[in-house]
Amino acid sequence: MPEKFTEESLGFKAWMLLHRTRDLFFRCEDRAVSEFGLTAEQWTVLLAIKYLDDPVRPTDVGRWLGHKVNTVSMIVDRMVRAGLVTRVRDLPDRRAIRLAITDRGEQAFKPATAAVWALIQEILATLTREDVRTLIRLLEPLRDKALECGDSRAGSPETAGCETRDVADIVRQLAPYIQTSSPEGRRQGREKRRK
Amino acid sequence: MPEKFTEESLGFKAWMLLHRTRDLFFRCEDRAVSEFGLTAEQWTVLLAIKYLDDPVRPTDVGRWLGHKVNTVSMIVDRMVRAGLVTRVRDLPDRRAIRLAITDRGEQAFKPATAAVWALIQEILATLTREDVRTLIRLLEPLRDKALECGDSRAGSPETAGCETRDVADIVRQLAPYIQTSSPEGRRQGREKRRK
Repeated sequence: MPEKFTEESLGFKAWMLLHRTRDLFFRCEDRAVSEFGLTAEQWTVLLAIKYLDDPVRPTDVGRWLGHKVNTVSMIVDRMVRAGLVTRVRDLPDRRAIRLAITDRGEQAFKPATAAVWALIQEILATLTREDVRTLIRLLEPLRDKALECGDSRAGSPETAGCETRDVADIVRQLAPYIQTSSPEGRRQGREKRRK
Repeated sequence: MPEKFTEESLGFKAWMLLHRTRDLFFRCEDRAVSEFGLTAEQWTVLLAIKYLDDPVRPTDVGRWLGHKVNTVSMIVDRMVRAGLVTRVRDLPDRRAIRLAITDRGEQAFKPATAAVWALIQEILATLTREDVRTLIRLLEPLRDKALECGDSRAGSPETAGCETRDVADIVRQLAPYIQTSSPEGRRQGREKRRK
């Protein structure tokens, strides 16, 4: 087999694996949060509203999630109907709206976040800490290159700003939501709820 | 800062980065194939029809892509309207349908695949070959763990079979579609088409 072919297979394999792993993660998340009446997509929108600086408009959520505004609007429509978020029209620009989490959304977000957190710990426990660091080191240039590709083709650096924020910031903001961060703790929590 | 907190941040960072990188890849793919009248999703469905063993039913595509059958049906509906695929009812089970690519679909798939291929090479060129191997080594256990998580929660190993196939097989099947695999070649091809 010629060398070039092998190299291309390798790249294709990495590419497919990245898609596949992320899609499976998303599916696991979906299952983890479904118990609390959310989809993984809805949980991510709640996370964005929590995490981004106020006021959070649908365009901000779209930018953060890499979705078109139309897609965000459709997701938000369903979330409004489910009573998880509201659209508030109190910004200086009266046409603009911001998204706010309702009490019901808050009640779903808290245990759902603990469940996602436990899931992350559970799945990443298959790697050593050093491997997780390596994974980050390898993914960062890929993300940056993909950002560049996307932007040069679209002609707008719309997503670049989201990359610079410190993940530790989100973790700090999420701290109150993460009560049981070990799989054992989560299982116990689940059993408790069932009783 | 306590050690545990840092470790959790690290996991969360890897998790977010994986989502983000894949989402940006998907967006780049979407742009790369849009030139040929396809969305990234549609290209992936065409890839599945090409790659999976005949007959390819919507359930097979869903299993491969990790989509629900309803989602696949919606994508296929649009693809049938766009004249890219047809639903054929010639299987022994008369209620079952298989998906077939039309001439028009074939004409779109060929240059779109070359474009995606060039994109993969371009993005992965930011890593050394050794790093690509490491990335694969790190992603594989994560994918397996996520598969396990997903399956144990759903109670069915529906996606497991897809993982065992040899990526080199797909690459071999795609070989006729990959004419210009370097970014330079792709740019030249694009310029030629514009003339």
